[in-house]
Amino acid sequence: MEGTDPSLPQLSKWKLHIVSENNFPTAAGLASSAAGFAALVVAIAKLFKLPQDMSEISKIARKGSGSACRSLFGGYVAWEMGDLENGEDSKAVEVAPVSHWPTMKAAILVVSDDKKDTPSTSGMQTTVATSDLFEHRIKNVVPARFEEMKKSIHDKNFEVFGKLTMQDSNSFHAVCLDSYPPIFYLTDTSKKIIKLVHQLNDAEGKIIAAYTFDAGPNAVIYYEQQNESKVLGLIHKHFSSIPGWDKVDTSKLETVDIAADENIHKGVSKLILTSVGLGPQETSESLISKTGEPLST
Amino acid sequence: MEGTDPSLPQLSKWKLHIVSENNFPTAAGLASSAAGFAALVVAIAKLFKLPQDMSEISKIARKGSGSACRSLFGGYVAWEMGDLENGEDSKAVEVAPVSHWPTMKAAILVVSDDKKDTPSTSGMQTTVATSDLFEHRIKNVVPARFEEMKKSIHDKNFEVFGKLTMQDSNSFHAVCLDSYPPIFYLTDTSKKIIKLVHQLNDAEGKIIAAYTFDAGPNAVIYYEQQNESKVLGLIHKHFSSIPGWDKVDTSKLETVDIAADENIHKGVSKLILTSVGLGPQETSESLISKTGEPLST
Repeated sequence: MEGTDPSLPQLSKWKLHIVSENNFPTAAGLASSAAGFAALVVAIAKLFKLPQDMSEISKIARKGSGSACRSLFGGYVAWEMGDLENGEDSKAVEVAPVSHWPTMKAAILVVSDDKKDTPSTSGMQTTVATSDLFEHRIKNVVPARFEEMKKSIHDKNFEVFGKLTMQDSNSFHAVCLDSYPPIFYLTDTSKKIIKLVHQLNDAEGKIIAAYTFDAGPNAVIYYEQQNESKVLGLIHKHFSSIPGWDKVDTSKLETVDIAADENIHKGVSKLILTSVGLGPQETSESLISKTGEPLST
Repeated sequence: MEGTDPSLPQLSKWKLHIVSENNFPTAAGLASSAAGFAALVVAIAKLFKLPQDMSEISKIARKGSGSACRSLFGGYVAWEMGDLENGEDSKAVEVAPVSHWPTMKAAILVVSDDKKDTPSTSGMQTTVATSDLFEHRIKNVVPARFEEMKKSIHDKNFEVFGKLTMQDSNSFHAVCLDSYPPIFYLTDTSKKIIKLVHQLNDAEGKIIAAYTFDAGPNAVIYYEQQNESKVLGLIHKHFSSIPGWDKVDTSKLETVDIAADENIHKGVSKLILTSVGLGPQETSESLISKTGEPLST
């Protein structure tokens, strides 16, 4: 605005007083910083009426937290690594909007609210510098899987999507383990959940649920709406005692006969049920008082 | 013998009644089958007075358990993969005898006597068939490390030996994790031990201890005799309650001020203290009665 009309106040020279809140577990490997930075960057972009090309804005968000660039979009999003050595052309692009495949859901088993030993960004730097398998993963494994993954979304093929999701989660954690010193995000509880998902798919004779773990021990389990009764039935069988079931009529879930360690629920603190959603949403709610102070501390 | 003198009884046509015992935890990832098959193959080779080229005999032992081929030798042993597609020329060779570097010791923390979820051989088959990182490891990572490792033994360079040992352990477990479905041998207890070893080395400013994990959760911690007081001092600080200390004067160990999870000892059932040793040893002890029955059942 100010570029086109010099008589307007120069917003870019004003100082901003920002109040930011995040209701997601912080530093637990649940992309809390991605959500926070995405919201912050979009809010500032709207304030300054910056060009609304989300992929361009994603380059800025990426500097706060790598995966924040993805969180600017709703639906299905790809984070392209780009060609430049300095990473400046690394950005996120939309693969498909929510409306293309709206039946994708996710159950998140929060394995630990504890802060991680290794923050994601410095962990990834250690991996890049020391893992002998990392470069092969990035140059050979990921690019092929990236294209297959986009195709599976275009095709709404859950079996392919699910297998790729699980394989890539394993591959990512493999290179973390191959770092020196090794980085472990998965815990014994994570492993028990992985086993449970494989057992469910084996019993069904096809992939109806797929786990993935970001840089933390928490399991994100993807499934399609039509399999919700089975997938949540299995999760409820083992995790009925944890909070997060209030919006589910658990009496209507299917009974799934797959056993697990009877203490598996002790490693999980809560369930978050969600689905493929929209990107950052504007709100009229304010976190700041009329005198410029935070409303809550 | 019978080949050179046809009048001798044809031993090769006799049936063998074999009684075999193993005092090592079985199927726990501690190379119990390697030890057992090595002993068995050497005993039969001695009985039939087969040519005593251990590398040739190692090819037979390898069929019982891959790593059995290594256990035919004492001292430092390399298992060469060979060139043939069918693996028939894969064999073990001596890198150096015990006398070359006799100060190498090992403390084994038996993390679990439980049988493994995945037996080593079928686990490795799954990894070969499904891991995208495995081929890169075998073709690129292992051959270079193999040569460096042999050199570190020839040079008696513990710092290089130790770092390579830890890196290769991590790399092996990384490709296990990268399998589909993933194979996990390391547990939360294994990880806590790994962290402890890194902390000890960091505090010393050099590598004086090195962990490695075979296809199981048990930690083998290598160290040199001259650092025993420090390395066992740290282990004793955290694992004084487990059996295995009877041959150590623990009052003479150094006090090492490195903290760990106060429950770390709960995941470990015993300590085995050992050192680089000789190969299979002939014994006059018999496990079989005069009537051909096992002495113990």
